[in-house]
Amino acid sequence: MTSFIRSGQRAADQLRPVRLTRGFTIHAEGSVLVEFGQTRVLCTASVEEKVPPHKRGSGEGWVTAEYGMLPRATHTRGDREAARGKQSGRTQEIQRLIGRSLRAVFDLSALGERTIALDCDVLQADGGTRTAAITGAFVAAQDAVNLLLARGKLAASPIRGPVAAVSVGLVEGTPLLDLEYTEDVACGTDMNVVMTGEGHFVEVQGTAEGVPFTRAEMNELLRLAEKGISELIDAQRQALALPLGAG
Amino acid sequence: MTSFIRSGQRAADQLRPVRLTRGFTIHAEGSVLVEFGQTRVLCTASVEEKVPPHKRGSGEGWVTAEYGMLPRATHTRGDREAARGKQSGRTQEIQRLIGRSLRAVFDLSALGERTIALDCDVLQADGGTRTAAITGAFVAAQDAVNLLLARGKLAASPIRGPVAAVSVGLVEGTPLLDLEYTEDVACGTDMNVVMTGEGHFVEVQGTAEGVPFTRAEMNELLRLAEKGISELIDAQRQALALPLGAG
Amino acid sequence: MTSFIRSGQRAADQLRPVRLTRGFTIHAEGSVLVEFGQTRVLCTASVEEKVPPHKRGSGEGWVTAEYGMLPRATHTRGDREAARGKQSGRTQEIQRLIGRSLRAVFDLSALGERTIALDCDVLQADGGTRTAAITGAFVAAQDAVNLLLARGKLAASPIRGPVAAVSVGLVEGTPLLDLEYTEDVACGTDMNVVMTGEGHFVEVQGTAEGVPFTRAEMNELLRLAEKGISELIDAQRQALALPLGAG
Amino acid sequence: MTSFIRSGQRAADQLRPVRLTRGFTIHAEGSVLVEFGQTRVLCTASVEEKVPPHKRGSGEGWVTAEYGMLPRATHTRGDREAARGKQSGRTQEIQRLIGRSLRAVFDLSALGERTIALDCDVLQADGGTRTAAITGAFVAAQDAVNLLLARGKLAASPIRGPVAAVSVGLVEGTPLLDLEYTEDVACGTDMNVVMTGEGHFVEVQGTAEGVPFTRAEMNELLRLAEKGISELIDAQRQALALPLGAG
Amino acid sequence: MTSFIRSGQRAADQLRPVRLTRGFTIHAEGSVLVEFGQTRVLCTASVEEKVPPHKRGSGEGWVTAEYGMLPRATHTRGDREAARGKQSGRTQEIQRLIGRSLRAVFDLSALGERTIALDCDVLQADGGTRTAAITGAFVAAQDAVNLLLARGKLAASPIRGPVAAVSVGLVEGTPLLDLEYTEDVACGTDMNVVMTGEGHFVEVQGTAEGVPFTRAEMNELLRLAEKGISELIDAQRQALALPLGAG
Amino acid sequence: MTSFIRSGQRAADQLRPVRLTRGFTIHAEGSVLVEFGQTRVLCTASVEEKVPPHKRGSGEGWVTAEYGMLPRATHTRGDREAARGKQSGRTQEIQRLIGRSLRAVFDLSALGERTIALDCDVLQADGGTRTAAITGAFVAAQDAVNLLLARGKLAASPIRGPVAAVSVGLVEGTPLLDLEYTEDVACGTDMNVVMTGEGHFVEVQGTAEGVPFTRAEMNELLRLAEKGISELIDAQRQALALPLGAG
Repeated sequence: MTSFIRSGQRAADQLRPVRLTRGFTIHAEGSVLVEFGQTRVLCTASVEEKVPPHKRGSGEGWVTAEYGMLPRATHTRGDREAARGKQSGRTQEIQRLIGRSLRAVFDLSALGERTIALDCDVLQADGGTRTAAITGAFVAAQDAVNLLLARGKLAASPIRGPVAAVSVGLVEGTPLLDLEYTEDVACGTDMNVVMTGEGHFVEVQGTAEGVPFTRAEMNELLRLAEKGISELIDAQRQALALPLGAG
Repeated sequence: MTSFIRSGQRAADQLRPVRLTRGFTIHAEGSVLVEFGQTRVLCTASVEEKVPPHKRGSGEGWVTAEYGMLPRATHTRGDREAARGKQSGRTQEIQRLIGRSLRAVFDLSALGERTIALDCDVLQADGGTRTAAITGAFVAAQDAVNLLLARGKLAASPIRGPVAAVSVGLVEGTPLLDLEYTEDVACGTDMNVVMTGEGHFVEVQGTAEGVPFTRAEMNELLRLAEKGISELIDAQRQALALPLGAG
Repeated sequence: MTSFIRSGQRAADQLRPVRLTRGFTIHAEGSVLVEFGQTRVLCTASVEEKVPPHKRGSGEGWVTAEYGMLPRATHTRGDREAARGKQSGRTQEIQRLIGRSLRAVFDLSALGERTIALDCDVLQADGGTRTAAITGAFVAAQDAVNLLLARGKLAASPIRGPVAAVSVGLVEGTPLLDLEYTEDVACGTDMNVVMTGEGHFVEVQGTAEGVPFTRAEMNELLRLAEKGISELIDAQRQALALPLGAG
Repeated sequence: MTSFIRSGQRAADQLRPVRLTRGFTIHAEGSVLVEFGQTRVLCTASVEEKVPPHKRGSGEGWVTAEYGMLPRATHTRGDREAARGKQSGRTQEIQRLIGRSLRAVFDLSALGERTIALDCDVLQADGGTRTAAITGAFVAAQDAVNLLLARGKLAASPIRGPVAAVSVGLVEGTPLLDLEYTEDVACGTDMNVVMTGEGHFVEVQGTAEGVPFTRAEMNELLRLAEKGISELIDAQRQALALPLGAG
Repeated sequence: MTSFIRSGQRAADQLRPVRLTRGFTIHAEGSVLVEFGQTRVLCTASVEEKVPPHKRGSGEGWVTAEYGMLPRATHTRGDREAARGKQSGRTQEIQRLIGRSLRAVFDLSALGERTIALDCDVLQADGGTRTAAITGAFVAAQDAVNLLLARGKLAASPIRGPVAAVSVGLVEGTPLLDLEYTEDVACGTDMNVVMTGEGHFVEVQGTAEGVPFTRAEMNELLRLAEKGISELIDAQRQALALPLGAG
Repeated sequence: MTSFIRSGQRAADQLRPVRLTRGFTIHAEGSVLVEFGQTRVLCTASVEEKVPPHKRGSGEGWVTAEYGMLPRATHTRGDREAARGKQSGRTQEIQRLIGRSLRAVFDLSALGERTIALDCDVLQADGGTRTAAITGAFVAAQDAVNLLLARGKLAASPIRGPVAAVSVGLVEGTPLLDLEYTEDVACGTDMNVVMTGEGHFVEVQGTAEGVPFTRAEMNELLRLAEKGISELIDAQRQALALPLGAG
């Protein structure tokens, strides 16, 4: 097995440069631009003092997510989903994943009957948009919760701990961390992993695009993901340690 | 960790009774009723002598899948998606999974410029509809390919080997194989695994509905899945060994 | 005028073999697989303790129907209506017919403010799917009502009597009862007739596909329909006379 | 059985005043305002030098129809279907009926590969809109064909003869011809009949809204329909005998 | 700059013949056929004793408009928006313009919590359909208000004064009033102007289809519009001065 | 008339700070972030080597625009149009305006049979999003054309000159240039003006939200618009004078 050479001399187990810019827009309760290299996703957290029908009267809140991609976020222009009149299966799959991942670290009873809506819009895509979205959405959600705490709307945080996500994959047989677009296209197996700050799994979604993968390969991919997510959670902590507006 | 007691004295690592009835309907090139206990899915394989736009002129074929659930396949009646005017995110996610899983064992060049469309319609649901669908769709696809071979439309089979799927999960801390509906509702972690006859992974989709899961728990779940899928692939082989119409 | 020869030595005024299998699926309050020869339709009756807006507060119930065809119920695969995002005019026409036909034998006041939703899904089509659906849906509705009576939710049956339906047509000038697909395609005039157990008409829908038909031809077609429906109503009675689960 | 008294001293077997105004609008190849009493429908026939996909290359033409109702054609305002984003089942049923009825008198081979599109838009509704639409659409279609003949695009008329339609029904047990809205609402059985100039049937659609109807009642209704359609066909002939623009 | 010669010897600053026929249909509270030459639009005003969500409980009413074009109102047949499943951007733009224009002369508090829905349906198009629609909708709205006053539902009129609209444009450099279709197609700048009876502006929408226009040209176009609207408001007054049914 | 006091001591005839950042994203042929104060719109220009059906074979190109608003670009979260399944009337109106405005300065023959698609997505809204979009889209379109020239795909520029847009309005009787959100909400008359570098009008869209406006008021508003657009066109020139990437 020959080793795949990554662009920019990146090591196989190395993340792209990660940037989390808080307060990127002014209206949302939380607003974070997350960058994994050239992938840039704007994540906003909106607090709404109402819950969807299945939660009404339950005393519990809800956390939901929507995902979108600007038409020219990609190498060639894609259709605008609003113009086409429906969201693709891919979009729905991703926004369901983001919603589940964030709910995994929320105590919905402690949130009270309100909703945090996370909007993740890809401004520029270069692979890993869904994992960047989860990682950024957590920071936006934390900012929104901090605002609710500061305003006295919440007495204690409903967030149990951080959550972040990364992609891993086998490219020409080499296990790689945090695939960029050219690697994603070339990869035989692609896996998205979502983990908590304690190193437990929230989601594992592995797909063999080409040759099915072995248990040993899966173990190696999970090891890479654990390393990457641990670093992403550090990056979240550092971003949140700064005063808002300093990022 | 106390052990969860399953209905019908089923062991934690035991599949529900599996039945694969070939030739269940008469028009399709392949037509299989697959039953995992009370879950019943009708899988048909239709051969169409054309390919979608992205494959035209490529010399390659395509394998695609659609999934549906009859409104009263479930305990309470669900909306009919055709009446509501769109497929849910769940439906799209499942049919994308079935399509990818089947394509993983097909050599699309060897199929030639034709499409095999797999329709998986749930007549009765009791958990595991997507894994039953994949397992049954493979048998339907094999019957359709056999027909193309018998009619001289194909000189050699484009199928590289069998593929099957099963769900596993943690219910009250106990790892269980092939979850039925009541277990699925109660489960903390739910994982769908798709594997080939050689024991390699095509898809792994694990989700923590409640408490995030550990690496050790994941390993135990994958072990159960490997056992179950190996038995399902035996069941596929036995069903396909019978003359069509004998099932 | 030479007489048209039917497949399987069927006489011009002879129904195809009729089978009504009650309890075909387990969740619905009524579940019947109806077979008119090779045409197979799954009819479920679901009881919902609510009514549509136009009946709210009226003290009356409602009976409604939806119809669908699995994509490969037919000789060549048809589009999935859920994927296409809308029901065809044909589908809507049929489900409106089924609903009206069943309401014709229901006393909606006696039903109370609840809905019986009839789902008729064609698993295999060989002509006459709408008439099979009406005939089967009546049995499913009766089973659902029987359950409401057994559970004490209803004191008396809101069903006034049976209803069944059959197609008749002129094929190469010969009047035929209960058209199968090849006859349907060849037929010049096609008529669907819905009648009660007392021999009265609920619906008559006759269409000249080719040459317009005369009053004398219409009379002959109606005579055939009366004969066929009388036999179908006998078949319904016999099926309902069995204990549920014996069918 | 007491006899129902109609408004305006109309006899049970009497049509409302019928008016057919040709050339009602200027752009269409045929344009007819048809009035059955207070019911007013604008029927236009548009000739398009192309056919739908299923007729391409067949050498045959096509005749199709669309139906609409202005939002305030009725006593209370109805939703605009274009704003709601879909046509109702009722609309689709009616436009399919109009299309079939007109095709019944067309020789599609003699039409050549072109389409006649009939648009029937209800300006004011007072019962019988679909039967008025068929009756008016025939005149519009005839005007369009006359234009094609005059322009030398057709050597001979593809129209085999006239077609017209009327509703009949049982209101409080009395068989009535050509129901107006208040009668339609009160009626137990409602039947729409489409016939040719030779007195043959193209469509018969009878529905028991309340009590199912007997064979004897049906015979009486058909007799009324035959009388009414014969008069409507006379009215069509008279209208077409005038020079265009004189109506 | 040579002067453009208009059809029918019309002067550059001359309106086409304007007709306002009140009581054109019988069900609506106001119903006006407006004709600007060959352009004919049916405008109905429907009173509904409810308001949209954003006005509920406000004590204020609402005035809204919908616009449609019959498929063969135009030279060549256009798609039916109801069949296509959505309204075009043009349709939405026009109906929003009509709604805003009418609301400009309504005191919504004085209307009370009810809605006046204006439906403007083009029966025949020859340019200027939106301006004819506004001009006719005002008369229909006035008739509906008069009915509410006559029935004692309103004590005083919520209408502040008349509103009307006209198009103006530069055709081959010549400023023209009230463009007909052939002029509209040829025109370089097209402007729709909506004004009140006091000569104030409600809307000005000018678009350079070809060469951008100068301030001087704009002034000249506005002068023409002022003249035309003043005449249209006279026509409205004269139509409303007649007893209803005399028009 | 008392004078309205603007935030930040802005004069009535003063634009907000304008920033045009070229090369804001990397994939598009032109990519500009335009800021009018707190309003921020990402405008990308995508070159596609094909044209829509109405231009095929004409030798001419096409310029088109789409507009969107991120759900939390605004003070309170708005629905995502892709999720709701259709674009609002407002969105369609705006994107049609942007498209027309840009086409006004393009020689479509000189562009050749290719399309420039302008996507204007509002990241943050504070009034004037459509005018910012037009102003930024011009710069993006210029960058795309420059790339086509540099690559030798075009021999000469199809752009005739610059185009820009600004809003003006009457707030509490005071004419103001470039309204921000709080002014827009309070304004009685709102006008969007699009002009070329030569000071000619491409579009004028004035709407009286409250009291209709006079000719004198309109003249004053147009004077303000002329001043503002002249400054915006200077800003475009300065931005385009910089090497790409320096912004």
